Amino acid sequence: MSQPSNQLQTQFERLKRNKLFELFVISVILVSALLIGAKTYPLPPQVVTATVILDYLITLFFLIELTIRFIAEPHKKRFFNNFWNVFDTLIVLVSLVPIENSELAVIGRLIRVFRVLRMVSIIPELRILLTSLVKALPQLGYVMLLMFIIFYIYAAIGSTLFEQINPNLWGDIAISMLTLFRVMTFEDWTDVMYETMAVYPLSWSYFLSFIFLSAFAFLNMVIGIVVNVMEQEHAKVREENSVAEGTNEPSLRELQQELKEIKTLLKQQK
Amino acid sequence: MSQPSNQLQTQFERLKRNKLFELFVISVILVSALLIGAKTYPLPPQVVTATVILDYLITLFFLIELTIRFIAEPHKKRFFNNFWNVFDTLIVLVSLVPIENSELAVIGRLIRVFRVLRMVSIIPELRILLTSLVKALPQLGYVMLLMFIIFYIYAAIGSTLFEQINPNLWGDIAISMLTLFRVMTFEDWTDVMYETMAVYPLSWSYFLSFIFLSAFAFLNMVIGIVVNVMEQEHAKVREENSVAEGTNEPSLRELQQELKEIKTLLKQQK
Amino acid sequence: MSQPSNQLQTQFERLKRNKLFELFVISVILVSALLIGAKTYPLPPQVVTATVILDYLITLFFLIELTIRFIAEPHKKRFFNNFWNVFDTLIVLVSLVPIENSELAVIGRLIRVFRVLRMVSIIPELRILLTSLVKALPQLGYVMLLMFIIFYIYAAIGSTLFEQINPNLWGDIAISMLTLFRVMTFEDWTDVMYETMAVYPLSWSYFLSFIFLSAFAFLNMVIGIVVNVMEQEHAKVREENSVAEGTNEPSLRELQQELKEIKTLLKQQK
Amino acid sequence: MSQPSNQLQTQFERLKRNKLFELFVISVILVSALLIGAKTYPLPPQVVTATVILDYLITLFFLIELTIRFIAEPHKKRFFNNFWNVFDTLIVLVSLVPIENSELAVIGRLIRVFRVLRMVSIIPELRILLTSLVKALPQLGYVMLLMFIIFYIYAAIGSTLFEQINPNLWGDIAISMLTLFRVMTFEDWTDVMYETMAVYPLSWSYFLSFIFLSAFAFLNMVIGIVVNVMEQEHAKVREENSVAEGTNEPSLRELQQELKEIKTLLKQQK
Repeated sequence: MSQPSNQLQTQFERLKRNKLFELFVISVILVSALLIGAKTYPLPPQVVTATVILDYLITLFFLIELTIRFIAEPHKKRFFNNFWNVFDTLIVLVSLVPIENSELAVIGRLIRVFRVLRMVSIIPELRILLTSLVKALPQLGYVMLLMFIIFYIYAAIGSTLFEQINPNLWGDIAISMLTLFRVMTFEDWTDVMYETMAVYPLSWSYFLSFIFLSAFAFLNMVIGIVVNVMEQEHAKVREENSVAEGTNEPSLRELQQELKEIKTLLKQQK
Repeated sequence: MSQPSNQLQTQFERLKRNKLFELFVISVILVSALLIGAKTYPLPPQVVTATVILDYLITLFFLIELTIRFIAEPHKKRFFNNFWNVFDTLIVLVSLVPIENSELAVIGRLIRVFRVLRMVSIIPELRILLTSLVKALPQLGYVMLLMFIIFYIYAAIGSTLFEQINPNLWGDIAISMLTLFRVMTFEDWTDVMYETMAVYPLSWSYFLSFIFLSAFAFLNMVIGIVVNVMEQEHAKVREENSVAEGTNEPSLRELQQELKEIKTLLKQQK
Repeated sequence: MSQPSNQLQTQFERLKRNKLFELFVISVILVSALLIGAKTYPLPPQVVTATVILDYLITLFFLIELTIRFIAEPHKKRFFNNFWNVFDTLIVLVSLVPIENSELAVIGRLIRVFRVLRMVSIIPELRILLTSLVKALPQLGYVMLLMFIIFYIYAAIGSTLFEQINPNLWGDIAISMLTLFRVMTFEDWTDVMYETMAVYPLSWSYFLSFIFLSAFAFLNMVIGIVVNVMEQEHAKVREENSVAEGTNEPSLRELQQELKEIKTLLKQQK
Repeated sequence: MSQPSNQLQTQFERLKRNKLFELFVISVILVSALLIGAKTYPLPPQVVTATVILDYLITLFFLIELTIRFIAEPHKKRFFNNFWNVFDTLIVLVSLVPIENSELAVIGRLIRVFRVLRMVSIIPELRILLTSLVKALPQLGYVMLLMFIIFYIYAAIGSTLFEQINPNLWGDIAISMLTLFRVMTFEDWTDVMYETMAVYPLSWSYFLSFIFLSAFAFLNMVIGIVVNVMEQEHAKVREENSVAEGTNEPSLRELQQELKEIKTLLKQQK
């Protein structure tokens, strides 16, 4: 029975690699994305019915496409080791959940929105970009933690001192952190400050020190990323150079060694 | 007949290269730019008449200048291969369209505004700057696409959830994208957020995740450009170095090879 | 008597280095941080009593932990040369001050907030990050001074000219500097400008020149930091290279010297 | 007579270089700066009289200090070739103009504000910083010109289309450019846009294209400065390296040449 299955696998693999099939998949994804956008406009009832049918067709197509890719995979176990395959499977499976209830209809619509992300999984360049973005995150870990500590301490001070002044902004530590994020984006931050300065005239120092600290930490984060990217680039260039030069270059020290040997030979001849 | 035409061509070429003529062209462009600015102020009727006459004279001069440049060109076919010649021709041709109708007068004024762009086409440094700006765009293609996908998904979610709250901001996917761009520029974004938080208390996560994602993608774009520019600079420096050193330098490996040959020669002598 | 004391010291040193003990210290710090956050929410009276008891327990634990670290230190004098030890001691000592008075209760709560900073002192990566942040400050000294002079001059001009227009914004030089900082963050700066333009129509030049100057100085500061960090990275890479190559490489000049000696030897043989 | 004058000159030169004298000058400048700040606060009449007297004393001291520096200069003609000497002289001379008239009193106060700039002229590090800032400007010339052209064209379009909507924002080309600068700083830019979108629903494209263009040009400017600074740093490092290596290093090509000569010598010996 492995023979016909193998035949099917190679046929499906050929289909999967077919440029035309790929283009068709991309256009179905595009149509599904446009459909999501179109539904946000008021539509006549016939068109609404059409979009519902189209939605089912797209779900069906995604199911078929995923099945083809699964069968085309020679090593079935490896299929789910690939993050993007798992990602696509999840999106398809979630779309299959029947949500007829009117209250959950909104959730059904939200789930279909994530189909647009299949655009990322189908275009290799976007996939690379996204993984490189995600890979850049861990190196930011400690700066993020430091920033969180700064936010936490300032929010604790803020909700202790300013809670009576404006509970909407400083009610508890979570709201205070949101307010501080607002201050960090400079969004009407002086309104927040003038309000507290009416009670505590020195509270400007709280806001200014926070802005300086958070800006400085943020700057450090950005510089950290830039330096990191630069280093990776340099490492890549160096590697390319060493590959271009074929085998590893001799060092100047080795050359000097050879020269010394020659001199010894010459002196022996004398 | 080619003789007199050639004579005319070389004469016009000399005229085109004349520094004085170039300066005159630049000053006419400057006058036309000032004229456009002057027209935005309330002017007495006599001055308005003067500006209309001046407008015609400038259009005429641009036509003559373009004709001179066309005749000065030895290879007529190449003339329209140059982007900037096509650009200048278009601006002149469009100015020639007679717009007397009062309703279209605004369009006529708008078209004349683009004459200021001739400043870019006449100054070589600006031309280089603009082409380098345009050349930098394609490498941003995929980051821009990723950013658009992020905007599209968030806008779809936004107009699904928040449409009832404020149709002016979340009415359909296009308006939602404009609102998200506003949030990205931090322009009164907390007003938008507080409004939705009154209905969905957890909607701060929608806004914060969007700000983080878009800021991160934007940062990546900037770093991408910086690294790219740096690499080009390095490549230029390396090229200059290799040119400065005249012929290509021998590698250390080649020197080692020569040393080995010398040792063999010496050993043979023994 | 030094024998038993030494025994205690080595035992405590072993305890201090114990991974489990370290984890326990970190979790106590975490609990104390969460406690600070929890207190900003309205709590039932029983929980308030519990937090007070927990507060005392944490203070006690910090005191014990510090004592262990002090005894574990072989050179007692060096203990207070370490900035982080002094820092931890201060936080513990300040927590011990009995503040029962209701008026000072707020101050007591604020002091406990700084316990969260022990998170920085216990995690080595954060400690390194913070010291590198602090080390970056002095090199910014002169740019900061220049920026302060710019602010001071503009604030002096502002409070001289605009004091009558809006004393809340331009009352004295300190308030004017705060207003200028607000302008620098672009926070409703046009409101401030339009108000003064109603009296002095040319005052836009004051605001625009200030924005350009401060933005330019700020940009210079950022670039200064970036270049500095880059140089440090390059220096590190160069150092690593020279270490990797073991002993110091001979220069090309030395190799040339050797070649000349060989030639002399050969010529003598003739 | 040149003898005593010379004696005076060398004595004054010694005085000028005296660390104590320099410190005294700096503290007088500091006092004058603090005085300017103090005057922005409401002061009792006695203190006002004191500040007036102090003002005269400071003017007198600046005059004396400048005279000392002038006499200390061995080549009198070179004194005014130094920008900072001219700068200091101007500030002193302007302070000497008697302004008793109450209407001009404000101008008198403004002029004294610029005395704070003497801080820059007396501290060498600030002087270097400022000259390096000024030197960085010309290389930005063409990007600035391009940005101005972008602003000019958009302002011309804006005041043509939107003048009727809000003359306060789009009345003439100068006001429109100010409004566009406001849009560029994202300061309540959506208010400006929503107002025009009520009449021209597509005017969002005007604002978005302007934001993208100006942001892109601005980014290019920043990158241009970064690359420039980096290159200067690299050039400095390279120069230092070549100085450290003493005489100029032989090239690998020269070494290869020598090796070839040795081989020829060896072959001749055979």
